[in-house]
Amino acid sequence: MDQILQYIRGHRRQHLAQLFDLLRIPSVSTLPERAEDVKRCAQFLADDLQAMGMRNVNVMSTNGHPAVYAEWLEAPDAPTILIYGHYDVQPPDPLDLWESPPFDPQIRDGEIYARGSADDKGQAFAYFKAIEAYLSKKGSLPVNVKLLIEGEEEIGSAHTHKFVYDHLTLLQADAILLSDNSMFARGIPAICCGTRGLVACQIELESAARDLHSGAFGGVAENPIQVLADILSALKDDDERITIPGFYDDVLELSAEERQYFAGLPFDGEALQQEIGVRGFVGEKGFTPVEREWARPALDINGILGGFTGPGAKTIIPAKAMAKITMRLVSKQNPDKILQAAKDYISSLAPESVKLSFSGDAGGTAYLTPLDHPVLKHVAKAVRQSYGREPLFTRTGGSIGILSTFSDALRIPIAMVGLSYPDDNIHAPNEHLAEEAYYSGIETAARLFNELKNWDPGAAS
Amino acid sequence: MDQILQYIRGHRRQHLAQLFDLLRIPSVSTLPERAEDVKRCAQFLADDLQAMGMRNVNVMSTNGHPAVYAEWLEAPDAPTILIYGHYDVQPPDPLDLWESPPFDPQIRDGEIYARGSADDKGQAFAYFKAIEAYLSKKGSLPVNVKLLIEGEEEIGSAHTHKFVYDHLTLLQADAILLSDNSMFARGIPAICCGTRGLVACQIELESAARDLHSGAFGGVAENPIQVLADILSALKDDDERITIPGFYDDVLELSAEERQYFAGLPFDGEALQQEIGVRGFVGEKGFTPVEREWARPALDINGILGGFTGPGAKTIIPAKAMAKITMRLVSKQNPDKILQAAKDYISSLAPESVKLSFSGDAGGTAYLTPLDHPVLKHVAKAVRQSYGREPLFTRTGGSIGILSTFSDALRIPIAMVGLSYPDDNIHAPNEHLAEEAYYSGIETAARLFNELKNWDPGAAS
Repeated sequence: MDQILQYIRGHRRQHLAQLFDLLRIPSVSTLPERAEDVKRCAQFLADDLQAMGMRNVNVMSTNGHPAVYAEWLEAPDAPTILIYGHYDVQPPDPLDLWESPPFDPQIRDGEIYARGSADDKGQAFAYFKAIEAYLSKKGSLPVNVKLLIEGEEEIGSAHTHKFVYDHLTLLQADAILLSDNSMFARGIPAICCGTRGLVACQIELESAARDLHSGAFGGVAENPIQVLADILSALKDDDERITIPGFYDDVLELSAEERQYFAGLPFDGEALQQEIGVRGFVGEKGFTPVEREWARPALDINGILGGFTGPGAKTIIPAKAMAKITMRLVSKQNPDKILQAAKDYISSLAPESVKLSFSGDAGGTAYLTPLDHPVLKHVAKAVRQSYGREPLFTRTGGSIGILSTFSDALRIPIAMVGLSYPDDNIHAPNEHLAEEAYYSGIETAARLFNELKNWDPGAAS
Repeated sequence: MDQILQYIRGHRRQHLAQLFDLLRIPSVSTLPERAEDVKRCAQFLADDLQAMGMRNVNVMSTNGHPAVYAEWLEAPDAPTILIYGHYDVQPPDPLDLWESPPFDPQIRDGEIYARGSADDKGQAFAYFKAIEAYLSKKGSLPVNVKLLIEGEEEIGSAHTHKFVYDHLTLLQADAILLSDNSMFARGIPAICCGTRGLVACQIELESAARDLHSGAFGGVAENPIQVLADILSALKDDDERITIPGFYDDVLELSAEERQYFAGLPFDGEALQQEIGVRGFVGEKGFTPVEREWARPALDINGILGGFTGPGAKTIIPAKAMAKITMRLVSKQNPDKILQAAKDYISSLAPESVKLSFSGDAGGTAYLTPLDHPVLKHVAKAVRQSYGREPLFTRTGGSIGILSTFSDALRIPIAMVGLSYPDDNIHAPNEHLAEEAYYSGIETAARLFNELKNWDPGAAS
């Protein structure tokens, strides 16, 4: 390990220069005019992997932007780790808020400013450089490695879901490791072990052929906004529990150990409330905010529209009203089942006076690597060695579609090891990654490879 | 009376030509570029009144478009009737749906097609021609007449409310008579004795400094759309009664006679449902649709908006949500009191997690001329004589702001005698007034003057 770290520390200048080259490519996946840049970026990564001696390096076609694949599978007794990341980036707008051009990386106060520095080029590339260190110094890796760096994460991994199902054998591994998130705080490493799943739906109500005059029909004709309000209000009870029948049936309850662990995390609720400008937290009775965000399902109305919404008054009973809803699911809720249950319940709430149109999308399952899963011990040990302190085991309340797909398709544990710092401005102007976070990220990746060779995926947990 | 009717029937050609001249003036009050036409229209009417021998004819300034006033007060023992109407019209758009130009009146199949033919030039002008008949044939009118024809009805009588309060003495009378509505059906005359009042308000909720990610904050941060739905849903109970405390306190309950009378009206609910495309009527338990429209207060959400309403899904918890509400009031609800009660109740429903902004406008009181008011007997007699059948006594669920003002300011009975037919397309392309309705309207106006001389406003009812 020492000579690996020595190599990494001795090559900081080169590794930084290579990252800068990577960051200069404006691989914005959502902009059609950047398609060639996206392709160029994939090729840049493939060339680097080829040069360091990875096998089966391939810029693989999808129905969208290509995915970069590479492997090294010559450690027969060691586990196989699938490294996931993405090389596409968010659009840089608004440009005028950037202090230096988004695709001209610059270092100020020890921070690398560039679009994609933290999300996710800098973090994904850290694994490249760790692999390079091993292959260069030892000619081998401690574990088998498969590497999949996609080009569509910022557009919902549009074609990557199908790609995964189309390449199940190629991608089969014992665990997935990724770094597309941040540490808990500067100096406090974290391993994220779970995301929530997602179901989206839209309710449209229609009660008349046209908007009606509220004078002639107020008290006579149905008001679809009123019906919509009644339905939405009925979706939660006084304890803020979701009332859809069967909604909680498959929810994996938190263990006493997990609740105790979450309660001990240095979560600063008041600072967060101040930052987002809310007057306290609300939610399901009987659970803490952290528990509710990470381990309890939620239902949110994302948007609502009906009738006249301009300045002044317009005395109408609108003909239509609609609302958009998303539900965050936890292990082991089934998105299709929840979507159907929501549809059934909402249909039962709609009176005959309205025509209900319900559409929905079972976006993805939650994924959860249990706190006591053996792989986490090894991941944690490597992280502890790298940062000199015990990592926190966290989850995120958000949903990462492609992780749901990995979880469903490959059925292997997933661990997210945040390498950047929480104030990295991802998706915003002046995105940055601390130079130090990049270097320590490379070391962390190397330590992860080194430590995971001791994991026996076949052993009983 | 006979020679009056003879005069009217003998002057149909002239009266039609004069109406055509009136209809040719595009007096669209809402269009600034039509201000000169509006003024020209007022002068046209004043000239006509002057020519027929009315006294004190005056194009009176308001802070907006002028009002035309005239009087004839030389019947010392007879009551004084204030005739109200308006000479401004709605914009004619969409122009391409008109079969003949909106300001080039044409007769097809016995119908006068022109903007303003029914609303309200044709109906108001009928009173002019009846006055002309009397003054021309007899040199006098059977009753004292004051006439106020305003130029801002189609823009909410913007400056007319203040005008009324500024001219209380000038406008003082024993009753108000107007024709700005239609008959119950072709051949079925109606006297409209009541409108509903109006209160408008807007609720705005704010729960955070910015939209929040529903992954990070779903189940943790308040959702203002959810709160809004809860509030709106709580505004009515299962019997569709409005739950604002004290809301019904001042409601004048229908008498058994009124309910019986309404029940006997030839109201074709099914035809109406089909026309507006609703699946039946809904509303306050214990009342018929006619009762609910005419004599019960109503609360309607006119519009609602919050969060993301475009195509697809956006996983946010919005920072804000808002709804617009109007309430239709009945006699003797007080708009200011109701507005305050609504504000108090809604404030009590808003949890501490949201900042509530409530704004409102106590638009106007309901007006109601009781069915047993003596003036109605005389109005009904004149109408019966004119159309050969008993008129129906109706109300409207709508609100006519200026009538609320008349009612509040002058405290005298109001009767609306519809002269046009219900299919007259007011506010729409191809507005029309039956030639026959215009002629019989003039006769009806003359008969009203003739009959109202027998009314003694001072007698006990």
